[in-house]
Amino acid sequence: MKLPGQEEFEASSACENIPTGEMDSSLVPDPNPGGPSDTDSTEVGVFKDPMLFIQLNELLGWPQALEWRETGRWVLFEEKLEVGAGRWSAPHVPTLALPSLQKLRSLLAEGLVLLDCPAQSFLELVVRVESLSPELRGQLQALLLQRPQHNIRTTGIRPCWGFTDLRKASHDEDTPLKEQHQNALRLKLPPGVEAAAVLAGELGFLAQPLGAFVRLRNPVVLGPLTEVPLPSRFFCLLLGPPTRGRGYHEMGRAVAVLLSDPQFQWSVRRASNLHDLLAALDTFLEEVTVLPPGRWDPTVRIPPPKCLPSQHKRLPSQMREIKGLSRPRGAPAEDRHDHGPHATCPELQRTGRLFGGLVQDVRRKATWYPSDFLDALHPQCLSAVLYIYLATVTNAITFGGLLGDATDGAQGVLESFLGTAVAGAIFCLMAGQPLTILSSTGPVLVFERLLFSFSRDHNMDYLPFRLWIGIWVATFCLVLVATEASVLVRYFTRFTEEGFCALISLIFIYDALCKMLNLTRAYPIQRPGAPAYGCFCQYPGPGENESQWTRTNLKNRDDILIMDLGLVNASLLPPSECTRQGGRPRGPGCHTVPDIAFFSLLLFLTSFLFATALKHVKNSRLFPSMVRKVFSDFSSVLAILLGCGLDAFLGLATPKLLVPREFKPTLPGRDWLVSPFGANPWWLSVAAALPALLLSILIFMDQQITAVILNRAEYRLQKGGGFHLDLFCVAVLMLLTSVLGLPWYVSATVISLAHMDSLRRESRACVPGEAPSFLGIREQRVTGLMVFILTGISIFLAPVLKFIPMPVLYGIFLYMGVAALSSIQFMKRVQLLLMPAKHQPDLLLLRHVSLNRVHIFTAIQLACLGLLWIIKSTPAAIIFPLMLLGLVGVRKALEWVFSPQELLWLDELMPEEERNITEKGQEPEHSFSGSDSEDSELMYQPKAPEINISVN
Amino acid sequence: MKLPGQEEFEASSACENIPTGEMDSSLVPDPNPGGPSDTDSTEVGVFKDPMLFIQLNELLGWPQALEWRETGRWVLFEEKLEVGAGRWSAPHVPTLALPSLQKLRSLLAEGLVLLDCPAQSFLELVVRVESLSPELRGQLQALLLQRPQHNIRTTGIRPCWGFTDLRKASHDEDTPLKEQHQNALRLKLPPGVEAAAVLAGELGFLAQPLGAFVRLRNPVVLGPLTEVPLPSRFFCLLLGPPTRGRGYHEMGRAVAVLLSDPQFQWSVRRASNLHDLLAALDTFLEEVTVLPPGRWDPTVRIPPPKCLPSQHKRLPSQMREIKGLSRPRGAPAEDRHDHGPHATCPELQRTGRLFGGLVQDVRRKATWYPSDFLDALHPQCLSAVLYIYLATVTNAITFGGLLGDATDGAQGVLESFLGTAVAGAIFCLMAGQPLTILSSTGPVLVFERLLFSFSRDHNMDYLPFRLWIGIWVATFCLVLVATEASVLVRYFTRFTEEGFCALISLIFIYDALCKMLNLTRAYPIQRPGAPAYGCFCQYPGPGENESQWTRTNLKNRDDILIMDLGLVNASLLPPSECTRQGGRPRGPGCHTVPDIAFFSLLLFLTSFLFATALKHVKNSRLFPSMVRKVFSDFSSVLAILLGCGLDAFLGLATPKLLVPREFKPTLPGRDWLVSPFGANPWWLSVAAALPALLLSILIFMDQQITAVILNRAEYRLQKGGGFHLDLFCVAVLMLLTSVLGLPWYVSATVISLAHMDSLRRESRACVPGEAPSFLGIREQRVTGLMVFILTGISIFLAPVLKFIPMPVLYGIFLYMGVAALSSIQFMKRVQLLLMPAKHQPDLLLLRHVSLNRVHIFTAIQLACLGLLWIIKSTPAAIIFPLMLLGLVGVRKALEWVFSPQELLWLDELMPEEERNITEKGQEPEHSFSGSDSEDSELMYQPKAPEINISVN
Repeated sequence: MKLPGQEEFEASSACENIPTGEMDSSLVPDPNPGGPSDTDSTEVGVFKDPMLFIQLNELLGWPQALEWRETGRWVLFEEKLEVGAGRWSAPHVPTLALPSLQKLRSLLAEGLVLLDCPAQSFLELVVRVESLSPELRGQLQALLLQRPQHNIRTTGIRPCWGFTDLRKASHDEDTPLKEQHQNALRLKLPPGVEAAAVLAGELGFLAQPLGAFVRLRNPVVLGPLTEVPLPSRFFCLLLGPPTRGRGYHEMGRAVAVLLSDPQFQWSVRRASNLHDLLAALDTFLEEVTVLPPGRWDPTVRIPPPKCLPSQHKRLPSQMREIKGLSRPRGAPAEDRHDHGPHATCPELQRTGRLFGGLVQDVRRKATWYPSDFLDALHPQCLSAVLYIYLATVTNAITFGGLLGDATDGAQGVLESFLGTAVAGAIFCLMAGQPLTILSSTGPVLVFERLLFSFSRDHNMDYLPFRLWIGIWVATFCLVLVATEASVLVRYFTRFTEEGFCALISLIFIYDALCKMLNLTRAYPIQRPGAPAYGCFCQYPGPGENESQWTRTNLKNRDDILIMDLGLVNASLLPPSECTRQGGRPRGPGCHTVPDIAFFSLLLFLTSFLFATALKHVKNSRLFPSMVRKVFSDFSSVLAILLGCGLDAFLGLATPKLLVPREFKPTLPGRDWLVSPFGANPWWLSVAAALPALLLSILIFMDQQITAVILNRAEYRLQKGGGFHLDLFCVAVLMLLTSVLGLPWYVSATVISLAHMDSLRRESRACVPGEAPSFLGIREQRVTGLMVFILTGISIFLAPVLKFIPMPVLYGIFLYMGVAALSSIQFMKRVQLLLMPAKHQPDLLLLRHVSLNRVHIFTAIQLACLGLLWIIKSTPAAIIFPLMLLGLVGVRKALEWVFSPQELLWLDELMPEEERNITEKGQEPEHSFSGSDSEDSELMYQPKAPEINISVN
Repeated sequence: MKLPGQEEFEASSACENIPTGEMDSSLVPDPNPGGPSDTDSTEVGVFKDPMLFIQLNELLGWPQALEWRETGRWVLFEEKLEVGAGRWSAPHVPTLALPSLQKLRSLLAEGLVLLDCPAQSFLELVVRVESLSPELRGQLQALLLQRPQHNIRTTGIRPCWGFTDLRKASHDEDTPLKEQHQNALRLKLPPGVEAAAVLAGELGFLAQPLGAFVRLRNPVVLGPLTEVPLPSRFFCLLLGPPTRGRGYHEMGRAVAVLLSDPQFQWSVRRASNLHDLLAALDTFLEEVTVLPPGRWDPTVRIPPPKCLPSQHKRLPSQMREIKGLSRPRGAPAEDRHDHGPHATCPELQRTGRLFGGLVQDVRRKATWYPSDFLDALHPQCLSAVLYIYLATVTNAITFGGLLGDATDGAQGVLESFLGTAVAGAIFCLMAGQPLTILSSTGPVLVFERLLFSFSRDHNMDYLPFRLWIGIWVATFCLVLVATEASVLVRYFTRFTEEGFCALISLIFIYDALCKMLNLTRAYPIQRPGAPAYGCFCQYPGPGENESQWTRTNLKNRDDILIMDLGLVNASLLPPSECTRQGGRPRGPGCHTVPDIAFFSLLLFLTSFLFATALKHVKNSRLFPSMVRKVFSDFSSVLAILLGCGLDAFLGLATPKLLVPREFKPTLPGRDWLVSPFGANPWWLSVAAALPALLLSILIFMDQQITAVILNRAEYRLQKGGGFHLDLFCVAVLMLLTSVLGLPWYVSATVISLAHMDSLRRESRACVPGEAPSFLGIREQRVTGLMVFILTGISIFLAPVLKFIPMPVLYGIFLYMGVAALSSIQFMKRVQLLLMPAKHQPDLLLLRHVSLNRVHIFTAIQLACLGLLWIIKSTPAAIIFPLMLLGLVGVRKALEWVFSPQELLWLDELMPEEERNITEKGQEPEHSFSGSDSEDSELMYQPKAPEINISVN
C-alpha cells in the first residue's frame, strides 16, 4: 500500500541501514550519531557532555561604525547569515581552509588561554581577559561590552534585528533581553545545552594579533552575547590588525568548527593546559578529510549527510578504557553479519519442548499485559487510531469487493467488515505482537479464488468444504506451534520473500487490469455502424396478449435491420421506464449502456494516478510537512473519495460495490453458522486436508514473514514479539472464521508497519540540520483494539458504501500492486538489466559483486517467477503455496552457483552458511582488499534490511 | 514545447550559468573548467600543458605472492577498482587524509628526486632509480619489471584481467600488449595526453621507506606499466616496510591526486629541484578544502561537481604576468553584471543613421553567406533536419487546426503548411540569424482569434481587413527597422518576458481545456433516465409523401415519450445507413454519438501525460542516453502517434483534423490572392492601421525577445545575429502572407532553440567524470531550408493527416502550455509562496534578497498577470499587446519599490540602472559583507540567464 522511497540502497547517498519502504525509513531509527538531543543518542552516549551551541560574533564596520554582528552559528552543522536576505542559510557541513586552521593554531599558541576561569559575569570575564595582557587593559572593555546584533527569529513571525539602537555599553549587560528569550531556536535545543561565544574581527589600532581562549569553570549566561540566553562554557576572542580577506572571520569559523567537533570538545573540556588544547587541535587535523582545490569548489555548501561515521572509533583511547564501552547502545551495528532479523530475535531460539515456544511467549507477554493498556495514554494514540481505522476500512472494502467477486458472493463486504472486526479485536487482545494488524492479504485472496473455482468446477458446496479446510489448517498450525516450527523462518531469505512478494504483486496488477477489461465487455463500446442505437418500448396492443407479441422475437441482426415493425404500439421510453409502465424494451440497443466503459476506465486511471501522486506529495517541498504527511498517509482514502465524487457528479450507472442492506450473510439463504457438510459427500471433509496443507504453508509464510519484519531490531521494541503465540492466535481465528463463513485473516505487513509508524516516539527538539531521532514505538494493545471496534461499528455504513464504484477499487488495487512490486530490491536489479553500466547508481551491491553475477541472480529470480506464474495459470494452480516453499529449495541450491560473499550481498545467508562464515572468520576475498577504509564503509552502512511487502 | 529541467537555479547543486530550459542546459557550454579535451577548454586554456593520465599500481600479496595490481586511476577525478565486482567505481572527487599528504611530503623530502631524467625505456628508468640508492641496487629491478595486472575493458565487451599468467619479468617489457591498445579508455582521452605511473606498496625486506619521484625529459611508453600505452612523463615509487592501514596505498593516492591537480602539475613540470616540488605541494595544501571529521564521513564518494571554480585565479602569479591573460576565452564570465544578453550584443548598438542597423546587418552577414552553405556539410545536419522537420510539421498541424477553429476556416491546415514552408524558407535564405525557425506563435494566434471575433461581430469581410492590417504592420515594422528600434529590446527585462510568457501559456492551457469541454457538449454524455436510447428509421409509407410525415415532428421531450408511433414503417438502422436507404432517422437519440466524449477525454489525457512522461525519459537512468534523447526529443510526435493509434484501434467517430483534399484555400470560394476590399467599406483599409499598430507591438516583442535569446553569448555564435535584418524579413513576409491569406509568422523560441541544440558541436573525447564540453553551433542556412522544403512537400500528406483526432492535438497544446509555464523562474517563485522557509531550495536569489521582498515581487507579477487576464476577457481584449508593453512601464516603476541590488537578483537591470551601478562601482550592501568568499561564489555562478519561452 505504500510506495517506496527512491533513495534506497545507493551507497553514496544514503545510510544503508535505512530500510526500503518509505514508511520504514521514517520508522527506523536514524543512525545519525550526531543527534544528542536525547539520552539515547549516540554522540551523547559516547561523549557524555552537554551539547554546545556556538555563535560567531564578527566585528564589522572598522573604522567608522564598529559593531558586533552574529554571522554564523553551529550546533551540529553550520548556519551562515545571509546578510542580503537577512536569514539563516540552510544547515550545511562546515568547510575550512587549511591555512586558517594553522593560523589559529599559532595564534592560540601565543595567545591567552584561561582554563577553568571562575568569572561569574561577562564584565568579570572581560576584566580577567584584559588582565592577562597588560598593554590592552582598558581598550577592549567598551568594545566587548557593546551589544551584538543578532538575527533572531522569535516565536512570532518576523525576524527581528536585535538592539540596533543600543550600540553603547549598557549597564545591565548580564541580563538577556526579551527577544533572546523568545528565540525560536531555543525550542530546538535540547535541555542542558551550553553556549560557546566566538568573537572575531579586525581592529585597526591593534599592532599585533590577539587570541584568547577561555573555559569557564561554571557556565554563565553572558548577557546578550549569544542569541539564545544559554550559560556559556567557552569564550574565544580573535582580534587583530586588518588583513586581506577576512582572515579573522575565517579563524573564528575555525574555532567554531573545532568546538562543534565532538572529540575536540571532549578533549578541550578536559584540557588542563595550552598543550592539551593544541594536542586536541592536532588530533582534529589528523582526522580531517581533504578535498583537492582543483576538483572541488570550496564555496559549495554540502548538505548534512544522512548518516555520519560512528564517533565511537574516535573516542580518546583513555576514555574508551575507562568506560569499557563495547558499543554504545543505539549505535549502528558494527558487525556486517549482524544485520538480519535472525541473529537478533531471542524469540526464535528453539526450546526443544512441545509448545515450549508458546509457553515462553505467553509468559513473556503476560508480564507486559497491564502496561499494554497503560502505555496507550497519549494523544498520539488517538490520531493513530483514526489513520489505521481508515486504512483498515479501505482494506476491508476493497478486499470485501474482490472476495465477493472471487467467490460469487459467498463472502462479501459485510463478511469482510465483520470478520476484520472480530478477528482483529481478538488478535489485539491475545497476540504476542499486538501492534500487528490482521487483514485479508493478497496471497490468501488468491488461494481463496483458486479454491472457489476449483470447488465450483467440481460442483462442491463451497462453504462447508471451506469449513473443513479451516479446521484442518487450524490443526496443522497447532502442530506447527507445538513443534516450534516458527524458528524455521530463518530459512526465508530475501530471495524467498521477493519471489513471494513479486508473484502476489503481479497477480494484483494482472487482476486489476483483467477486471477493467471485463467491464468493457459488460458495457461494450458503441462503434459507428453498429446497430446499437435502436431500442424502443413496445406495449401489448389491445386484444393481444403477451404470448402473441413475444413471438416477434428477433433471431439475428439482419432481422432487426429490415423488419417492418408493423402495427405496434411503441414509444421511445428508456428501458427501465418502459418496464415500469408495463411495456417491454425491444431492440439491440436496450442492453447497451453507453459511456460506462470509458467512464469506468477514466475512474480507474484517475484513482490509480491520484493515489500514486498523493503518495509522492510527501517528498514534495510545497506545504508544511504535516499537511504533506496527511496527504501521503491518506492517499488511498482520498483517491477513493475523489473517484466517488466524480462518479456521483456525473451520475452514470457505473457498477457499484454490492453491500447488503441488512445484517445477514451476503449469500442469500445461509445462516451465520456454516453447516458442516451441506451438499458435499462426507469424505470431502477428509480430502480437505490436502488443500488445507497447502493453505497452511501459505498462512505460515505470510504470517511469519510479516512477523519477522515487524519484530526487526531496528524498531527497538521493548516488549518483544511472540511468533508462536501469534501463529496460535491465527490458528484459532482460522477456525472461528471458517465456522462463521468469514474471510481468513493473517498479519498484513504494510498496514501493520503503518500502525507502528503512527506510534513512533521521536525526540522533540532537533537542532538545525539534524533529523529527529527515533526513540521507540508506543507498544500497547489499545489502538488496535479501538480500530477494530470502530471497524465493527462501520458495518452499518452500508448506505454510504454502496456509492463506491468498482473501477475505483480496481484502481486502488492496481496502485497497491504497483507499489508493492516497486518496493522490492529485485525490481531495482531488474532495472539494472536495462541500465548502461555508466548510469548505474553507486550501489554497495555493485561495489562488491560483479555485474554479470548480479544479472545471473536476477535472471534466476525472474525464471522462478515465470515458473510460478505458469503454474498459477494452469489447472495445477492450487498447489502454488508448495511452489513458494520450493523457492527456499532453489535458494539453497544457489549456494552451489554463488559464493557466500556474493550471496551475502545479493541475499541474506541461511543459518548454516552464517555458521560457516562465522567459523571461518573473515571471508577470503577481503583478506587482502578489505582495507581499513573498505571496512569502515561497511561499518556504518550495513546492508539494508529489505522490507518485503506481502500485499495486504 | 520543451519541459524544463528541475535542477535549475539551486545555488548549492548547479552552476548558475546553465539556463533553465532543459534543452538549453545541453545547449549551453558547460563551464566545467576541467575539460581539457579541446583547445577551447579552460583548464588547458590556462595551463597549456598536456593532460595527465595517472595510474596507481599497488604491490599486493606480501610475502607469498607479490604482484602489482592497478587499484586506482585519475584523469580529472578518481576511479577506484572495486575488487569484488571487478569494475571501476564511478568517477568521484578524490578525498585524502591530511597525514598521508604530510607523510608523503617527508618521504619525498628525503627521497630520490630525478627531474628531466633522459631514460628511453622502463629498464633504463629502473636502472637510473636504482643507481641513486646504492644499497637497493639489484633488489628492485625484477620486482619493478614484473607486469602489473590491469582491469582493462577492451573495446569488446568483457573486462579482461591482463597477463595474470605472465608474472615473471619479460624480455619485451617495453612493448605494450594488444589489450592495452584495445583499451576502451583510450578513446576517451584527448590526443597528446601523457601518463604518470605511481607504484606503491609494502615490501617486507625494506628496512626504511623508499620514495622516488622521476620526471622524464621526454615522455616514454613504459611498456605494460600503465593500462593505456601512453608516453609517461612522471614516475613515482613509494615502497616501505609493512605499516598499519595501507599507508603506502594512501601515499600513492596522495601523489596521484596531487598530479591530477592542474596547478601542482604546472609547477612540477617546471620544477628545477626538490625545493620547487615541495613548494608546489605546500601551495596545494594551502588551497585544500577541509571537512571536519565529526561531521563528514571520509569514505563517502562525492560525485563530480557540475562546475568547478575557475583555475585562472590559482595560476602562479609569474605565469599570469607572462601571459598577460585577462580572462581565458571560454571561461565563465567573472563579472556579475556581464550575464545579460544586453552587454554582449554589438548588433544592438545604435548607429544613428536611417536604416543604419539594417545596412550593417546585411554587410556583416554577406561576408558569411558562402560559408552558411559550406558549413552544412556534416552528417549531424541530416539528423537535425529530420528532428526539426517533425517538430515543424507537428507545429503546423496543431496551429493549423487551432487557426482553422479560431477563424472559422478562413485559414486552415493547408494554409498553415504552405505559409510555414514559404515564409520559413525565405527567412532562412535572407535572415540575419538563419538558425531561427519561423512558426505561428501563441501570441499571434491569440491576436488573430481576437481579430476574427471582432470582425465577425462587426460584420466585416475578414481576409481583406486582415490584408490591410498586414500592409500596415509591414509599414510600421519598416519604420522600426529604419529607426533602429530593435535596440530598445534592452528594456525587455525578465519581468516583461515572464509576464508575456505566462499570459500566453495560461491562454494555451485555458483554451485546451475549453475546447475539451466544448467537445463534451457536442457529444453529450448519456445519463441514465435520459431519453437517449431512442432512434429509429422511418420510411415514407406507400401513398404518403414526405411533407406528410414531416409534420409529425416532435415538439418536446414529453411528446417523444408518450407518442404512439402508430402506422409507421420503421426499422432500427443506424442513422447514416437509414439516410442512405431513403429513410429518415427519428427520435432523440439520433444525434447522440455515445462514448465519444469520454473517449476524447481519454485521448486528451493520454497524449498530454504521454508527452510529459516521454519528455522526462531524458532524466531516467534506464536505456542508453541516445535512446532516451530520441524519446525525449520526439515526445510530442510520439504522443500524437500514440493518440492516433488508439483512435484508429477503436475506430470511434472522434472529431478529426479537417484537411482539404485538394490544393486550394480552406475557405470555399476564395482565390489564393486576397481581394483588397471585398465587402468592406474603403475606410476600413485606413482604420486597419489601429489594430495594425497593436499587432506591430506584438510582433516586435515576440520576434525580438526570441532573437535576443537565440543570440545569447552562451551559445558562442561566431557569425553574429541581425536583429534589424530579421525584423525586415518578418515585415516583408507579413506582407506576403497577408496577400495570400496565409498565417502570420515570427520567430519561435523553443523550436529555434531545439534547432540550435541539434546542431551543437561538442568535444568528442570525455575523460571519466567529465561532461562533454560545448564548442559552438553549426551556423548555416541549409538545415532550416531543408526543413521548410520538406514541410512544403508535406502539403500532400492530407490523406494521412485526416486521421489525427482533435483531442490529441488539444492534449499536445495543454502540454506545451504547461511546459512553457513551468519553465519560467516566475513559477518557481510562485511555488516559494507555498513553501515553508525550511524546505526552500538554496537559491542564490534567496541568499541575497529577503524572502518578503521576493514575495512582494512575485505578488506584483501575479497582479499584472491577473490584470492582463481580465483585459483579455473583456471586449477590450484586442488592445492586449499594448498592455504587454505596459509591463515595461510597470517594471520601470518597480525601481521605486526595489533597490537596484534586489532588482539585479529578481530581474535584470534596465540600461540606465546598469549605467548607474557601473558608475557607482560596487553596490553598497556588499561593501562590508561581500567577503572574498562571497565574491568568489558569484564569480563562477553568474545569475542564470532565464530562457523565456514564447510559446510556439
